Amino acid sequence: MSEKRVRVGLVGFGTVGTGVAKLICEEGDAIAAKMGVRLELACVVDVDTQKPRPVPLPEGILTSDLNRLVDDRSIDVGIELVGGTGIAREIQLRMLRAGKDVVTANKALLAVHGGELFRVARENGRCIAFEASCAGGIPIISALRAGLAANRITAMYGIVNGTCNYILSSMSSKDEAFASALAKAQKRGFAEADPTLDISGGDSAHKLAILASIAFGYEIALEDVYVQGLDGIARDDIRYGREMGYRLKLLAIAQRNPEGRISLRVHPSFIAADSSLARVDGSFNAISVFGNAVGEIFYYGRGAGMMPTASAVVADLIEVALGNSRTTFAHLQLRPREEAGPLIEQIDDSVSRFYVRVMAKDKPGVVARYSTILADHQISISGALQHEGTGPSNTVPVVITTHKTQERNMAAALAELPRLDVISGKPVCIRIVDIPQDKDT
Amino acid sequence: MSEKRVRVGLVGFGTVGTGVAKLICEEGDAIAAKMGVRLELACVVDVDTQKPRPVPLPEGILTSDLNRLVDDRSIDVGIELVGGTGIAREIQLRMLRAGKDVVTANKALLAVHGGELFRVARENGRCIAFEASCAGGIPIISALRAGLAANRITAMYGIVNGTCNYILSSMSSKDEAFASALAKAQKRGFAEADPTLDISGGDSAHKLAILASIAFGYEIALEDVYVQGLDGIARDDIRYGREMGYRLKLLAIAQRNPEGRISLRVHPSFIAADSSLARVDGSFNAISVFGNAVGEIFYYGRGAGMMPTASAVVADLIEVALGNSRTTFAHLQLRPREEAGPLIEQIDDSVSRFYVRVMAKDKPGVVARYSTILADHQISISGALQHEGTGPSNTVPVVITTHKTQERNMAAALAELPRLDVISGKPVCIRIVDIPQDKDT
Repeated sequence: MSEKRVRVGLVGFGTVGTGVAKLICEEGDAIAAKMGVRLELACVVDVDTQKPRPVPLPEGILTSDLNRLVDDRSIDVGIELVGGTGIAREIQLRMLRAGKDVVTANKALLAVHGGELFRVARENGRCIAFEASCAGGIPIISALRAGLAANRITAMYGIVNGTCNYILSSMSSKDEAFASALAKAQKRGFAEADPTLDISGGDSAHKLAILASIAFGYEIALEDVYVQGLDGIARDDIRYGREMGYRLKLLAIAQRNPEGRISLRVHPSFIAADSSLARVDGSFNAISVFGNAVGEIFYYGRGAGMMPTASAVVADLIEVALGNSRTTFAHLQLRPREEAGPLIEQIDDSVSRFYVRVMAKDKPGVVARYSTILADHQISISGALQHEGTGPSNTVPVVITTHKTQERNMAAALAELPRLDVISGKPVCIRIVDIPQDKDT
Repeated sequence: MSEKRVRVGLVGFGTVGTGVAKLICEEGDAIAAKMGVRLELACVVDVDTQKPRPVPLPEGILTSDLNRLVDDRSIDVGIELVGGTGIAREIQLRMLRAGKDVVTANKALLAVHGGELFRVARENGRCIAFEASCAGGIPIISALRAGLAANRITAMYGIVNGTCNYILSSMSSKDEAFASALAKAQKRGFAEADPTLDISGGDSAHKLAILASIAFGYEIALEDVYVQGLDGIARDDIRYGREMGYRLKLLAIAQRNPEGRISLRVHPSFIAADSSLARVDGSFNAISVFGNAVGEIFYYGRGAGMMPTASAVVADLIEVALGNSRTTFAHLQLRPREEAGPLIEQIDDSVSRFYVRVMAKDKPGVVARYSTILADHQISISGALQHEGTGPSNTVPVVITTHKTQERNMAAALAELPRLDVISGKPVCIRIVDIPQDKDT
């Protein structure tokens, strides 16, 4: 029942940093009473020491001088909430080399420089804790590292970017266009002024690389993840997909087949409307994890925001303070990237179902010629949708869904389709992901 | 990157015990490769050493002699999977006093004798790990202890008994009677031959006492939990509730209001059909946890069965082996039962909405007299349902739902209702639980 005191330094006093300071200051007593750990905020470093923040700090601890944190031997743990892959890397390295454990929410940095940072942490007998880097308040990293540790993880399907999910939800439920859904997300604080990293799928890829490395036990590089973002997604396709029983989500997918091949992909995905992930609306995150012993475990919660992310940072802080994070980190075995590389399935080799829409000129023979090309590439049609009436330039949208086929077959067919004189413009192709349903047998 | 070797003794070679032995034997290499922990099954104790089990054990480790485990100083951890509150208590005490950490799935024992066992564990510098005791494969204990540790938990709503949920799902989706749904559950292995502990709500209460003690940081006694089981639940009420937009679930509910009062209840609950918990079908478990920082986190997965429960046992084993469980256990502060007791809200004081069905004789004045009694007790009607036509003995079911009211008001009204000569038999009353919805604002 002993109480342990741990001194904490925080770098980055923005939104999440403010939430972390708030939790440490306001909930410190409650945390000590319940967990037996007393967190002391010793130092807060930010370039801007003047801006008023909605949390009163103890006198004299706010500074713009990182050295005050790094050189203070009484500080046990450093939190890096600066973000990005530049100065943040320097900050983490300096803190580790000064003998401090590191807590961070920086997915981009871990996805790009995780190998180096982990190595330096180990060399210095310290740890890096990063629960807050993936899916905000959902404790998914600790679930993969501890709660599900007895399992071989066979697959994960995640909605891990709240911005994209907010936009897709608006487009789907309110039949909004992409641009207006994005504008609304920005206005309401669910998208950055520059949303590129979110919309491109890059942020989801960072998180997937981290989650997959913990789940599969390999160093995963960002370039191992196939990424396609929301560019070019039209509300018409979301609507046609809905009519066929699907919802469109930007999924981060990690699969490991029995032979050990690993597929890592971020892309827009049509999923069955009655699946758990299809019901995740707005800025929320959710992850379905499949383990060989446990079956499916589904997690849902807030993936971003001041307090949910701060909740994950402070949870890490408590585990670091207890000493658990250092033990887990020391024992965590990640096989080197050179071993993982050859196991990664290339996107061309992957097998999927597809939604394909073409704009067909409304004349005889369209369907016959269209389906001949698909058949020539061993693609079998599983469903079709064509509304009566004509669209722009006297064309009609013809939608088909396919049975499973290799990506390379679909790519070849898609390259051929525009050559048909009965088809106008470029076909739209969106992957359909059949998430396994774990049910009573 | 060191590999730690830990020797494990297992008591209870039934369904879950077999799953645990299977995971240790078959997944030991994978666990060592990923987690840096080598689990060695040193000894398996069971009264029946002859029955064939679907897992081949190493030569000579199966025994009926508990002393072989207790006296073997090379064994670091003992797993108790005997169950019940009798001999299992002796087994855990002997293992703790022999200097072994304990891993268990025994919710009944922890709910009844947790205080004593925790004390003995602490006296001996050992820990008890019990992830498998609640919600099977869902790592909810570690979520409450670590992932959500920075939060004040304000409420939990759980479906934590797969047997009851299987029965209610069958009654709801197939309009089955209770008895036939139970028989089917037994036939398919989702209910015990003697299902009393499940059906009565007792098993859910055991789990709630454990979850609430971790979430709120108090020793919670079983008698602090109000329990009502599935006795007397009729499919008619499930159907009428459905028509009014509700699904019936046996919920385990823990709430802490801002003044610190704690409400702990297990009872049949009508919940909104579009809530996450309403969509949990069959033998699955799910828990919605609300924290002041994180908002809502929802967990879903298998709550029982050989491999899901074994997954939780072995996850604990790994954390015990790493030393993390002992650290967390040593720091875990549970305020004594004497402090918790006065905070527990009595069921009479609790506030709820209600579904009430009476069988009314089909004559003038029924609704007027019925609603007068409710009004006399300050109960306000929020909805009503009365189908045309008459039922048995010339009566019709009249269903109303109420706004929030204290239980004591409802109890008083229910006592008065049968005195009306226009009402036949005893009224049926089921609580309506409005689970908060965490949404984008």
